[in-house]
Amino acid sequence: MSRDRLIYLPLGGAGEIGMNAYVYGYGAPGKERLIVVDLGVTFPDMDTSPGVDLIMADMAWLEANRKRIEAVFITHAHEDHVGAVGLLWDRLRAPIYARKFTAEIAKRKLEEQGAPVSDLHVVEAWPATTTVGPFTVGFLPISHSIPESSGLAIDSPAGRVLHTGDFKVDVTPVVGEPFDAALWESVSAGGVRALMCDSTNVFSPQPGRSEATLAPEIERLYREAGGMVVATTFASNVARVKTLALAAEAAGRTICLMGRAMRRMTEVAEATGLLTGFPKTVSPEEAAEIPRQNLALIVTGSQGERRAASAQLSSQTYFGLSLQEGDTFLFSSKIIPGNERGVIRIMNQLSEKGVDVVDDDGGRYHVSGHANRPDLVQMHTLTKPQMIVPMHGEHRHLREHAKLAEERGIPSIVATNGMMLDLMGDRPKVAEYIDTGRLYLDGSAMYGAMDGVIRDRIRMALNGQVTITLILDENDEPLGDVWCETMGLPETGRSNASLVEVLEADLTQFVNRAKRGTLRDEEGLDKELRRIARNTAQAEIGKKPEVTVVVSRLG
Amino acid sequence: MSRDRLIYLPLGGAGEIGMNAYVYGYGAPGKERLIVVDLGVTFPDMDTSPGVDLIMADMAWLEANRKRIEAVFITHAHEDHVGAVGLLWDRLRAPIYARKFTAEIAKRKLEEQGAPVSDLHVVEAWPATTTVGPFTVGFLPISHSIPESSGLAIDSPAGRVLHTGDFKVDVTPVVGEPFDAALWESVSAGGVRALMCDSTNVFSPQPGRSEATLAPEIERLYREAGGMVVATTFASNVARVKTLALAAEAAGRTICLMGRAMRRMTEVAEATGLLTGFPKTVSPEEAAEIPRQNLALIVTGSQGERRAASAQLSSQTYFGLSLQEGDTFLFSSKIIPGNERGVIRIMNQLSEKGVDVVDDDGGRYHVSGHANRPDLVQMHTLTKPQMIVPMHGEHRHLREHAKLAEERGIPSIVATNGMMLDLMGDRPKVAEYIDTGRLYLDGSAMYGAMDGVIRDRIRMALNGQVTITLILDENDEPLGDVWCETMGLPETGRSNASLVEVLEADLTQFVNRAKRGTLRDEEGLDKELRRIARNTAQAEIGKKPEVTVVVSRLG
Repeated sequence: MSRDRLIYLPLGGAGEIGMNAYVYGYGAPGKERLIVVDLGVTFPDMDTSPGVDLIMADMAWLEANRKRIEAVFITHAHEDHVGAVGLLWDRLRAPIYARKFTAEIAKRKLEEQGAPVSDLHVVEAWPATTTVGPFTVGFLPISHSIPESSGLAIDSPAGRVLHTGDFKVDVTPVVGEPFDAALWESVSAGGVRALMCDSTNVFSPQPGRSEATLAPEIERLYREAGGMVVATTFASNVARVKTLALAAEAAGRTICLMGRAMRRMTEVAEATGLLTGFPKTVSPEEAAEIPRQNLALIVTGSQGERRAASAQLSSQTYFGLSLQEGDTFLFSSKIIPGNERGVIRIMNQLSEKGVDVVDDDGGRYHVSGHANRPDLVQMHTLTKPQMIVPMHGEHRHLREHAKLAEERGIPSIVATNGMMLDLMGDRPKVAEYIDTGRLYLDGSAMYGAMDGVIRDRIRMALNGQVTITLILDENDEPLGDVWCETMGLPETGRSNASLVEVLEADLTQFVNRAKRGTLRDEEGLDKELRRIARNTAQAEIGKKPEVTVVVSRLG
Repeated sequence: MSRDRLIYLPLGGAGEIGMNAYVYGYGAPGKERLIVVDLGVTFPDMDTSPGVDLIMADMAWLEANRKRIEAVFITHAHEDHVGAVGLLWDRLRAPIYARKFTAEIAKRKLEEQGAPVSDLHVVEAWPATTTVGPFTVGFLPISHSIPESSGLAIDSPAGRVLHTGDFKVDVTPVVGEPFDAALWESVSAGGVRALMCDSTNVFSPQPGRSEATLAPEIERLYREAGGMVVATTFASNVARVKTLALAAEAAGRTICLMGRAMRRMTEVAEATGLLTGFPKTVSPEEAAEIPRQNLALIVTGSQGERRAASAQLSSQTYFGLSLQEGDTFLFSSKIIPGNERGVIRIMNQLSEKGVDVVDDDGGRYHVSGHANRPDLVQMHTLTKPQMIVPMHGEHRHLREHAKLAEERGIPSIVATNGMMLDLMGDRPKVAEYIDTGRLYLDGSAMYGAMDGVIRDRIRMALNGQVTITLILDENDEPLGDVWCETMGLPETGRSNASLVEVLEADLTQFVNRAKRGTLRDEEGLDKELRRIARNTAQAEIGKKPEVTVVVSRLG
């Protein structure tokens, strides 16, 4: 019998930014008891996932091993760490552990999906710990762009693993716990078998800057602006929302929060005692009565989301408020790669209204929530791990982080989703490759990214669609002409006649001339009608559409 | 009768970056004789134009006034200035004027579309001029990121207009003519009624840097790299291609050009005498025989285009060449906003191969081809125009540029596509609003952006598609069950039964229970079937698909 081992298996977040889901296991090979760290989502786009609502890591492996799962631990309340807790609950049905604020957000996710909240356990920070199976897990407070973020100390008979979660090094974070170097040093004093470490900012060469550095600049902007000032940032960045609100208040402005997430996050942060001293806010209705130079809106939609408050305000009157010449719009945020088009669209709409747009301006109005390269080195140095496994990052980030570790003499590896590592030796070693993938939430349905649904949608979007219907009578003779409908195709083509009519003419000619055997051969007829339609379309409009063939046989 | 006037009408490029098309007119209102400056394209994306091949400005107004067009002038050979010359020739049928290199590219565009090249005229640079109708037009050499770019001096009885085209201030541009301040000063000496000026980089606060500054850094990179070095940039940036090639040669590497556009542009530049001293190149087949540390590939695809050489090399063996650990890939380019996802995908694929990716690194390996804010001020100062009309830029760029002009005491205006300006007064004045829009090339078909084709494709992509077929007999009784086909929808929904079967059951139940009158009412039946299918889908999968209904009536 093989000896017990400690394993690590990323299912999401390793090879991408988003949908974090990591598994640790301890026990005999194939029988390890498991814990899951984070169940996050990532967001769809038209290029790869049109019509999809949310994306999460494929849980097939965990579902197949559900009996082995001891618990789920959530490091913090960002969507890419907690967003799938409700959606995946039914597939995993394991107890969930989180600190208070995070648990409050997780609770809402569970409730939204009709999942029981009885399996959700609120835990205190380190030195409190939770023991499940062979694991004892403690939440280590760490600074990030949402309150109460935590790394995890994961103890097993094989020693201690430190899982940073998302973090930055910020000793003055405005809201929440400052980075505590002494804490990380002390939990590492007994030796750290492995450090699992955030990688997203490994290409940023300068040390990260503190949230506290922003207040003076933001306050100056509020003071100097003539009209209304609208500021947008992530709703979950409670520290930033507070910085914006205090600066606005100091500049003599009344604050109005807009966007559901903005109000919800602030409420939860206040209810859980994390957010104190937040200025009084007014409703949009009340705001409409206040002179615009005394008003500060803090709103959702910093990434250009079409339905969020920023997009609404840029294009129309929203809750009685409308922007105009002389107003200022501040993006206290960075554009996440891929969201450029949406954000730029809003900027131009604001420009059309005569609104002055201010972006992060090279860091003047925004700081990142992630550890930059020197901060990563600081974490390596504080924890002195036997090995480092970079996590949360695209392949290029993981690779660069692994190189950074190796250059400093610490064994490392690029472990992407599905690579199960054995952490028992001197360096991380691949134990097994697990099939992984993505799950799509689409309306109320969930299906795999590779199930073909999205492939078909993309094909229809690129190529348009033709529906062909043909009725064959009892003798397999055509009853009437072939009938076509098109969708997403131009009405006329090269011959200047209606595309539908040209298609119908070509197809009808074919069936009228076809032999009885051809018409009787279901699969063959279908294929032939499709081929002719595609060729006719190619001749007429220079492209081959997707084709649906419906042959009704009365016989 | 009103007096003659000078008008300016942007049809594309004013309110966006891309698809430049500007009209000038002189004469009695409504009867001005017209010239067109540039006929460019812009590129589609999945969000707004899935399946489209190219986008250009709507020509309806020009077509309706075709008899008034004297000529088309092309400032330079970038796709967003020359790309639509062939596609739109048939709609305008006006003589085209361009300098040698640009004309050679335009000629290929005309030939590709089967348009005659007899209307294409090669002209010399200033002081040569071309007189067409009331206009005399001269090509003023100016530096940009493609050889032989030109501004235009457009003389009419109302005085001189200067149209900068795209430009940067570069006195050492490696290939092509340096920026010649004295020339711009001298053509302005007699007074400039209006300066139409490039706006894309108005938000860049530092003066632009010369192409020549890149050579030492690029050469160092070639020398220090261990394996093969692949560099990508725009093929049309002949100066950059030359810089890369000379640096590679100096570092002892043999050069191989990959990608059709890369070879074509270099050929045209050599054939027209603009590119000299370019090192000898080898074919990919020959390159495969050369030790990789002695090899430099210069390839297309800097914007992540899926079929270009960069994407191919990042994912597979391409023309016998494959990348591996220790190779270097240089993006000697900036990502155009909106292309981030494609470029990052390639970077990660390269990372998976162990290839080191180097990006522009804050300007070390790339300089922009456009005038930054101080360079725009320099142009304003050199030409001392009576008024400035910002062109080529999104709304925010035009607005900022207009503010910059006004701040310096020069009358200006934000003129977007369709705003016809009267330039006769002391400041630009809106004369009329013209309906404008976008034309899509899709396969061989061309249609308007608002024709509904793309709207339907986007709907299918977001919502999936259901086809319903029903046969009614001579008595309007259902002949058999309702038949459904789905595309882009999950196979099962909430009830865990086949979605198609649930749809068919609900629809069949409806038709079986429907009154004769309902079944006879073509429009009503169609609507009802659609409604039921959408509601059933909503219940099953939580979304309402697009529906095609085909009812065949044997009666």
